[in-house]
Amino acid sequence: MNILVINAGSSSLKFQLYNMDNEEVLAKGKVERIGMETAILSYDPAERQGIREVAEVLEHTTAIQKVLGMLMHKDHGVLSSMKEIDAVGHRVVHGGESFSSSVIVNEEVKREIRRLFDLAPLHNPAHLLGIQAVENNMPDVPQVVVFDTAFHQTMPPKSYLYPIPMVLYKKHQIRRYGFHGTSHAYVSERAAALIQKPFDKLKIVTCHIGNGASCAAILNGRSVDTSMGMTPLEGLMMGTRSGDIDPAIVPFAMGKEELTLNEVNSMLNKHSGLMAISGISGDMREIVRAMEAGDRNATLAFEMYEYRLRKYIGAYAAAMNGLDLLVFTAGVGENSAELREALCRNLTFLGLELDEHANVQRSDAERVISTKESRIQVMVIPTNEELVIARDTHRLILAREEDVV
Amino acid sequence: MNILVINAGSSSLKFQLYNMDNEEVLAKGKVERIGMETAILSYDPAERQGIREVAEVLEHTTAIQKVLGMLMHKDHGVLSSMKEIDAVGHRVVHGGESFSSSVIVNEEVKREIRRLFDLAPLHNPAHLLGIQAVENNMPDVPQVVVFDTAFHQTMPPKSYLYPIPMVLYKKHQIRRYGFHGTSHAYVSERAAALIQKPFDKLKIVTCHIGNGASCAAILNGRSVDTSMGMTPLEGLMMGTRSGDIDPAIVPFAMGKEELTLNEVNSMLNKHSGLMAISGISGDMREIVRAMEAGDRNATLAFEMYEYRLRKYIGAYAAAMNGLDLLVFTAGVGENSAELREALCRNLTFLGLELDEHANVQRSDAERVISTKESRIQVMVIPTNEELVIARDTHRLILAREEDVV
Repeated sequence: MNILVINAGSSSLKFQLYNMDNEEVLAKGKVERIGMETAILSYDPAERQGIREVAEVLEHTTAIQKVLGMLMHKDHGVLSSMKEIDAVGHRVVHGGESFSSSVIVNEEVKREIRRLFDLAPLHNPAHLLGIQAVENNMPDVPQVVVFDTAFHQTMPPKSYLYPIPMVLYKKHQIRRYGFHGTSHAYVSERAAALIQKPFDKLKIVTCHIGNGASCAAILNGRSVDTSMGMTPLEGLMMGTRSGDIDPAIVPFAMGKEELTLNEVNSMLNKHSGLMAISGISGDMREIVRAMEAGDRNATLAFEMYEYRLRKYIGAYAAAMNGLDLLVFTAGVGENSAELREALCRNLTFLGLELDEHANVQRSDAERVISTKESRIQVMVIPTNEELVIARDTHRLILAREEDVV
Repeated sequence: MNILVINAGSSSLKFQLYNMDNEEVLAKGKVERIGMETAILSYDPAERQGIREVAEVLEHTTAIQKVLGMLMHKDHGVLSSMKEIDAVGHRVVHGGESFSSSVIVNEEVKREIRRLFDLAPLHNPAHLLGIQAVENNMPDVPQVVVFDTAFHQTMPPKSYLYPIPMVLYKKHQIRRYGFHGTSHAYVSERAAALIQKPFDKLKIVTCHIGNGASCAAILNGRSVDTSMGMTPLEGLMMGTRSGDIDPAIVPFAMGKEELTLNEVNSMLNKHSGLMAISGISGDMREIVRAMEAGDRNATLAFEMYEYRLRKYIGAYAAAMNGLDLLVFTAGVGENSAELREALCRNLTFLGLELDEHANVQRSDAERVISTKESRIQVMVIPTNEELVIARDTHRLILAREEDVV
């Protein structure tokens, strides 16, 4: 069974085609600058030369048409007919309280994704465009949606409610949802499997730290807390997002600087975090380079980033009354040995002992980086959200076929 | 030496008169509803009958005049002349970055307190009125100011800076200041002394949880982090304050409910916290009563309050890479055995072991409530901010006299 995985943004669309018999990626690529006459297509099949092309792509339906064209290209293609795509799986950022797992798309599911536009105005509208674009091109192919929020729907009320008037929850659905759920679920389960411990009997903290960053407390296989909240702004310091601040700063800064609601949102989401403190970049690699060259603002940015994440790890250990397994993933988590080292150096009170040699080894592999004696195991697990989407899609389509039989 | 301690609010003024030879409180009381024709005076000397009186008190100078009148009252007084007051000590909420310890009032100090009005608009103007009122009544008596923020001025930049554009710090002084510093300093030092350990070699978390609530990480005798921030809104869930929320909720709720900057501030400061979740009260005693009677919303409010505080304790243990001493103080901290028990039950992973019998004993005394075997000592220390103000005032006045000699 071949499954096409799609992550549709407002002006971009990424895709991967999986052969689910062996979970192999047959091809992947993206369409950028959708809406422009000079959109950029890129396509890379597993064992053949890829395609780079500039074309007019004014909306998502055309983007999908172009993707299908490349997948079936006579020289570079990996499929001979559209019929070889058995199902499509979409990443959807916000599933609100309606979805605690992946589902097959139908009219009601689309209505619900639309109803959640308010909570994810930058993401859900684009996802729906992606779903409709697939419908327009391949009306008979079943589609599945996989939500970033779904894994965190197991949080108890004490974690997901905010201590603010309850009318805001009841009327406007203001609560903690959490994001990166697909990644937190994937890496925590992988980590448990690799050390051969039962996933449903572990206390795990997962740190998904990339450009966006969140961590999660996973108790006995279920997410019980996570640092992102109603929106992806809350929690950890990120590349350009502030994470936690005194909420009173928002009206104070709005008043002082005469900012509109949009402007204060933009300031906290796009001009804060590592970028704001370092004045150099929101990219941890550049921060570390500048720090090693002696830049003081970069050093401060690194220290704040590390310190704020470390406090979350301690908080989640307290949330679960213990910690067995600490997992790092995503761009920074997988690659920044400096950050992992700084964090673990100050978590020895938990009985955590980093294997400094294992930590600095360059590798793309799943690996343990704590010592044998360490009471807490520390691991690096490269995340693979596309694979989870492909697997969920595969599972749901198989289940439906069984139902039909 | 007799010292008058004053806590001046915008419409109230509390006072205590100390004899510093033995740190005895000679009398205490307050003036409420300042600005009205029906202000309420109350006065309680240590060993005599008190006074309750309704009087016209339109501003702070009159309030101080009334206080002095009561202290020298022919039947109820404890002083025979104003000359027996050697100095006055004031509580001042916000000292900004200018004051890292208590100081003797002079023109420059007053200017600085005025410059900080912006950061503490509800408090600093009233404190300055109190200082001026004393000047008007007793021009020759030296005055000292003791700041709620001073103890936290030892925080490193990684704790006090927010990951937002640096211009907001440089131009508007937006940073973490922290509050309740006088209390955190007092109880942490007392606790260390009582267990006969060196204050400057301990890792302490202090929980000052009353109507307002904050906790602090105190490493080797210095505050290195605290939960309140630029304002007293950040951090823990409180009686009517939200504490931490996704900062994006502020503009979102403003947009949805068409709230002004003042209205959103008021919502988060006065209509949130325990009150918002329970729908019953912002008072922990009433929450516990309702919870014991089976009220579900009160139970949820208690759980959220406990859970959010517990995460801060874990976070600060991670901030200091360890914890030796956990101290509870203020209304809820000193009196709610239920809360302390719920917290400690889920902190056993730190090697913390509560002595359940000691925890529930009703007492106003300073006491240890962990077992002898507990790796972390847990204590209840009744706070006494007035005594700290009196001591600081005493010390500074003595030092000045020595200088003069």
